[in-house]
Amino acid sequence: MNIEEITGKKNNIGIVEQKIFSFEGITLDSGIFFGPIDVAYETYGKLNEDHSNAILVCHALTGDEHLAGYHKEDLDAIIAEQDPIQKKRLVRKLAGWWDDMIGPGKPFDTDKYFVIGSNVLTGCHGTTGPSSIDPKTGKPYGLRFPIVTMCDMVKVQKKLCEHLGIEKLFCVVGGSYGGMHVLDWTVHYPDCVELAIIIASTAQVSPQAMAFDEISRRAIMNDPYFNHGDYYGQDKQPNYGTQTARMIGHMQYLSPEAMQLKWGRKLQDKDKPDYSWDCVEYEVESYLNYQGKIFTERKFDANSYLYITKAMDYFDAKHDFSSLAKAFKATKAKFLCISFSTDWLFPTPEVKSFVKALRRAGKDVAYTEIETDKGHDAFLLEFDTLSKLVKNYIEKNGDI
Amino acid sequence: MNIEEITGKKNNIGIVEQKIFSFEGITLDSGIFFGPIDVAYETYGKLNEDHSNAILVCHALTGDEHLAGYHKEDLDAIIAEQDPIQKKRLVRKLAGWWDDMIGPGKPFDTDKYFVIGSNVLTGCHGTTGPSSIDPKTGKPYGLRFPIVTMCDMVKVQKKLCEHLGIEKLFCVVGGSYGGMHVLDWTVHYPDCVELAIIIASTAQVSPQAMAFDEISRRAIMNDPYFNHGDYYGQDKQPNYGTQTARMIGHMQYLSPEAMQLKWGRKLQDKDKPDYSWDCVEYEVESYLNYQGKIFTERKFDANSYLYITKAMDYFDAKHDFSSLAKAFKATKAKFLCISFSTDWLFPTPEVKSFVKALRRAGKDVAYTEIETDKGHDAFLLEFDTLSKLVKNYIEKNGDI
Repeated sequence: MNIEEITGKKNNIGIVEQKIFSFEGITLDSGIFFGPIDVAYETYGKLNEDHSNAILVCHALTGDEHLAGYHKEDLDAIIAEQDPIQKKRLVRKLAGWWDDMIGPGKPFDTDKYFVIGSNVLTGCHGTTGPSSIDPKTGKPYGLRFPIVTMCDMVKVQKKLCEHLGIEKLFCVVGGSYGGMHVLDWTVHYPDCVELAIIIASTAQVSPQAMAFDEISRRAIMNDPYFNHGDYYGQDKQPNYGTQTARMIGHMQYLSPEAMQLKWGRKLQDKDKPDYSWDCVEYEVESYLNYQGKIFTERKFDANSYLYITKAMDYFDAKHDFSSLAKAFKATKAKFLCISFSTDWLFPTPEVKSFVKALRRAGKDVAYTEIETDKGHDAFLLEFDTLSKLVKNYIEKNGDI
Repeated sequence: MNIEEITGKKNNIGIVEQKIFSFEGITLDSGIFFGPIDVAYETYGKLNEDHSNAILVCHALTGDEHLAGYHKEDLDAIIAEQDPIQKKRLVRKLAGWWDDMIGPGKPFDTDKYFVIGSNVLTGCHGTTGPSSIDPKTGKPYGLRFPIVTMCDMVKVQKKLCEHLGIEKLFCVVGGSYGGMHVLDWTVHYPDCVELAIIIASTAQVSPQAMAFDEISRRAIMNDPYFNHGDYYGQDKQPNYGTQTARMIGHMQYLSPEAMQLKWGRKLQDKDKPDYSWDCVEYEVESYLNYQGKIFTERKFDANSYLYITKAMDYFDAKHDFSSLAKAFKATKAKFLCISFSTDWLFPTPEVKSFVKALRRAGKDVAYTEIETDKGHDAFLLEFDTLSKLVKNYIEKNGDI
């Protein structure tokens, strides 16, 4: 198939497929041994002879392992679509979430590097999570799934790398939630990372972010159809509560400035309010409702959202050490850290704080703040600036 | 009764009582005539002969008309309480919410002024609201209560003032939600206000605040016991959802700085996490849970919360005018406006923006920003600074 002809996209990686790596399990931070574990992953490009060109991309909160290119069945759906507007929408929607960054000649150049994406433990995109079948009961785990930490998730990524024959990653990169994974890699596997790229992320979330996570979880757990997490196979799903949780998330991704610019106080397709409970009054409400709806339409599992946010709250890069600088002491990685000026979920001062700790630990750190009004969302929106930064950094530091 | 002996409080106004003013109704902003309306109110001090010493205090989102002093039955409860810690708690809890500001010799000096507090339309503290009985059906209104605006609420306050024989208020004062009422008074009753004191409030809320309001309402409406607003008399009430909504509110009252200082990432009475769904892990979660619980314990009506936040979203002081400066053009009031440096619900730049409009309209405006790490909550916490500012302003401008 000619991908460019079908999608209009140049230098696309083309058809990719999900793979599964299964292994016996790991001992979790909580002390429990948990397994078996399936890991859903994708790879792009070729691993070189000495296995030194691997880049691991860690996805954000609700992201997944499908980083770039198209799955065969998705391309078929795009080909079958006759409406040009719908076709364009599918081309955008069905590509991997970092398609612009990964491919031949792109910042993560698949002509040179072997790029890996893997879905986190507790996810709902193929890796074992609360929606998976518990082999002991033959039923989905639900809330009987053990609570896991970021370190547990990274431990699973490490197992996958070993399975692929990779002892040392040329680069580990991630934004937001994924950036925390990158930090954990450098702390717990100090000899295994050459370059660490951390975008819009911090060494721990603030109490404000923890509190919003807790409120989001309440919105899900109080949904009339949540049924203590055992909603699988039910006629009705806890969608409305899950949408509310997602809306709370989106609030943190948007800067107040961006909200003002984008919607302000504009009414939704009308000149004056309806003063009614049966309608959406403002554009900003409509946007958030839409974000909530597409989240449940793509069937993101409500329980996964609970586990994933919980892991974020627990994460503290200095957890096993007396200071952040000590946590970073052993790593041999070089760091590129990027923050966004209007990000209030992972604000610049908090990014600077772990950058300082890295410098105290004597590490090679490049740090930059990107000026933007787009808030935390800039991680997926400020493509031009981000791709230039990353491309330059990799070219400068890549000796392969 | 000797109030000082019972409560340990000096210059307390003493025993006060709720009064009810009933009238036929008003035409709402939505065009509907709504009535009859009961208004719950309290007064402190004496109205002077020419009725020129009245101060109207407009309460915040979930506040009420009980501004100062004690109700007789509450004092009896304090007297009956034997445990000194519990007694102290009751003394604090049962006093009016602005007890420190209103009384003999206090900033709002009841030896000189006649102070009025009234519960807003749609409230749940005596004024007609969704929990009131609809005389047409003999049942509580629930969501059949019409949606009302801030202007409607102020129209009801105006009716109350007329009933009390007051044509012109010496002062209208309010913080947060109440500050919006003050602004509306100056816009819609330009000849009726001498001094307008607006604390931590703006001429309209931001799209960010509107969005959080919408999310809060979703949390209530999706509660399994909400029953489309007809939960009155049910065994179970939509408490959990209402608590979640309140938690979202509190998040906006707290500055990230205050959250960091107060709780940081401290675990709740333990050295390491339990990694369990059955417990509270962090202090910040515990605080918010507590705030949610006391909100439903004081039986704040879930439907009232929906209507009150909706009115906040609709409020725009310039609504009937082409600009904010034009909205303020006609008023004869002098203004004192106060903002708090770490308030992100009603941030200083937004306060400054209506202060600028007031100046463009040629008004006499004093503005000050109070430096604090307490966020929006400072409105009830920065008592010393606030009371001095208000006292000085009233003394300087009060010619009675």
